Amino acid sequence: MNTFKLLSEKGHRIGILATPHGKIHTPFFMPIATRGAVKNLNADELHKLKSEIILSNTYHLIQRPGLDVLKKQKGLHVFIGWKGPILTDSGGYQIFSLSKFRTLTRDGVTFTSEIDGSRVSLTPESVIDAQLTIGSDIIMVLDECPPWPCSYEFAKKSLERTLQWAMRSKKHFERSMKKRGVPLSTRPLLFGIVQGSTYKKLRDASAREMIKIGFDGYAIGGLAVGEPRALRNKVLEWNTLVLPKEKPRYCMGVGKPEDIVDAVRGGADMFDCVIPTREARHGRLYVRNSKKTITQDGFYKIIRIKKMVFANDKKPIDMHCLCTTCQTYSRSYIRHLFSIQEGLALRLATIHNLSFYLSLMRELQTL
Amino acid sequence: MNTFKLLSEKGHRIGILATPHGKIHTPFFMPIATRGAVKNLNADELHKLKSEIILSNTYHLIQRPGLDVLKKQKGLHVFIGWKGPILTDSGGYQIFSLSKFRTLTRDGVTFTSEIDGSRVSLTPESVIDAQLTIGSDIIMVLDECPPWPCSYEFAKKSLERTLQWAMRSKKHFERSMKKRGVPLSTRPLLFGIVQGSTYKKLRDASAREMIKIGFDGYAIGGLAVGEPRALRNKVLEWNTLVLPKEKPRYCMGVGKPEDIVDAVRGGADMFDCVIPTREARHGRLYVRNSKKTITQDGFYKIIRIKKMVFANDKKPIDMHCLCTTCQTYSRSYIRHLFSIQEGLALRLATIHNLSFYLSLMRELQTL
Repeated sequence: MNTFKLLSEKGHRIGILATPHGKIHTPFFMPIATRGAVKNLNADELHKLKSEIILSNTYHLIQRPGLDVLKKQKGLHVFIGWKGPILTDSGGYQIFSLSKFRTLTRDGVTFTSEIDGSRVSLTPESVIDAQLTIGSDIIMVLDECPPWPCSYEFAKKSLERTLQWAMRSKKHFERSMKKRGVPLSTRPLLFGIVQGSTYKKLRDASAREMIKIGFDGYAIGGLAVGEPRALRNKVLEWNTLVLPKEKPRYCMGVGKPEDIVDAVRGGADMFDCVIPTREARHGRLYVRNSKKTITQDGFYKIIRIKKMVFANDKKPIDMHCLCTTCQTYSRSYIRHLFSIQEGLALRLATIHNLSFYLSLMRELQTL
Repeated sequence: MNTFKLLSEKGHRIGILATPHGKIHTPFFMPIATRGAVKNLNADELHKLKSEIILSNTYHLIQRPGLDVLKKQKGLHVFIGWKGPILTDSGGYQIFSLSKFRTLTRDGVTFTSEIDGSRVSLTPESVIDAQLTIGSDIIMVLDECPPWPCSYEFAKKSLERTLQWAMRSKKHFERSMKKRGVPLSTRPLLFGIVQGSTYKKLRDASAREMIKIGFDGYAIGGLAVGEPRALRNKVLEWNTLVLPKEKPRYCMGVGKPEDIVDAVRGGADMFDCVIPTREARHGRLYVRNSKKTITQDGFYKIIRIKKMVFANDKKPIDMHCLCTTCQTYSRSYIRHLFSIQEGLALRLATIHNLSFYLSLMRELQTL
């Protein structure tokens, strides 16, 4: 069964991805709900933002609230009150981001929890099980995200592990689906992850091997870890040349608005990034330049709302923005809320920045 | 013009208070928006909670965002996006609560700002002007809230100052209304404040003098500063015996749910308190005991949602509560949000606790 329907390839790819909790228009951006909440927002606000999917983190959910809680609550959707699709990552990114706190073996990875020092072990099989308990719509295989830069030797060795893990993941997933008697039509999607650092040979091999194993979609991993924009676009080009057109491509961790536009033009369909929500919490807000198209440099700017210059500014953050923040509140009030460290400031800012990203994606869906 | 309509005196007082921004059913409770925001809530959520009025603090607004901002923004209502009535206190309570940081003179009070060490001076006249700039619907006169306990001599001297200030306030208010040409029908209400600590003679004298000056309503001040419940009820009884029936009575700073029930039965109409919102932020949530009436001990209990025992509790905070938190989320999820220190936890808890208070008031409005 192919869950992805490519509607157009003129210009860039536009399509629809079907999941157990509904269809998603591509290209799309996933707001990040690390531990089951997009920071400072509720599910209703995400629906109003027309977010069609959110992303949650397996490694963090395993620790809090824990799989026993999620099992008893009948999965993450019920627990957090979100009716749309959820993608969960596998913990592979934490192998990179929490590299000081983990031990890597052939079998999997063990972290020392940053919360209480306890040990958290992940194997390709256990992260599939965890994501099935979470009730994810899109399940990611466990991979190793190497740092950038890294030597060819390191990248090659790392990739071999990622490929081994991918095979085990696929096998375990298929077995679990059979064991649980899940019909094809309600199965979650399983995505493989292409690695290989910034070495063409490894990237090509990685993509080909992943295709051989066979997944519902392919992620391009190992990007947005510090490499220059041009190099990232290069890697993306190598991978999209090899990956099958009829499957969705998820460009993990990307990125700034211009990076997403680049990647969509380069053939990617799915994105996630902490940037818009994190920037919001620091009072850094996106303002669209309506005189430029999204492919032009300077199609937006970032204002720092905490600055004195906004103390008396009655305008909304962005005159052309349709989000509830811009429809209701002035820059002056939002600045005031930041200055008194009021939680509502973070909410209003997050709503606006996500609205900017999601509007950008909707524009890309219709171009 | 009498802005207050007493509908019933059987049992306790039930009425309607008219203000420039709409009518309010009495008895009512005012959620506290110290600096123009009820912590973690937006105006829309307050409307959904059927809050008919909010309270804001003059002393704090003068400092942030400052009167110059509020003037340019055409008042607090526009600034914060709240369409209902607003009552502002005068700074008199800060004379008590920030007693270490202020100097009291015959003319007024000067604070050393806790934000930047600058000096903030309040006089009876300046706080009227400030509240007119804020655009309050109900303006409170500057008073001195004495601590409890205090000597008769101290209370008497303090009360004399409060009375002097009240006369100056009334005079300045009338002059300002004339000068600005505000018609009677759109005037804000001006409230006097009865003081006199817990001395009957002083309380009686204070109430009589305030009545002589003549206000749209009378606050009973100096309570909820540590005195025992029985003594508070006594003071309330003395004051309500003297105060005119046809004017609203505002019992400042009261209090816990049972204290409000006491005070309503004792003849008070208006209340404000930080307790429900502050308790919410600490994860202390109200659960109504549906087997008891609100005049019985134990008509509610407080649960500490952070406790382990709620980790798997699928029930809402309160089975009978109609607030959006209880209609949408489980104790388990709310506990999880507190445990990951997610801002949404504070919002959901605040909505519930305010809903408990406002439902209690609606019950009192129909008894």
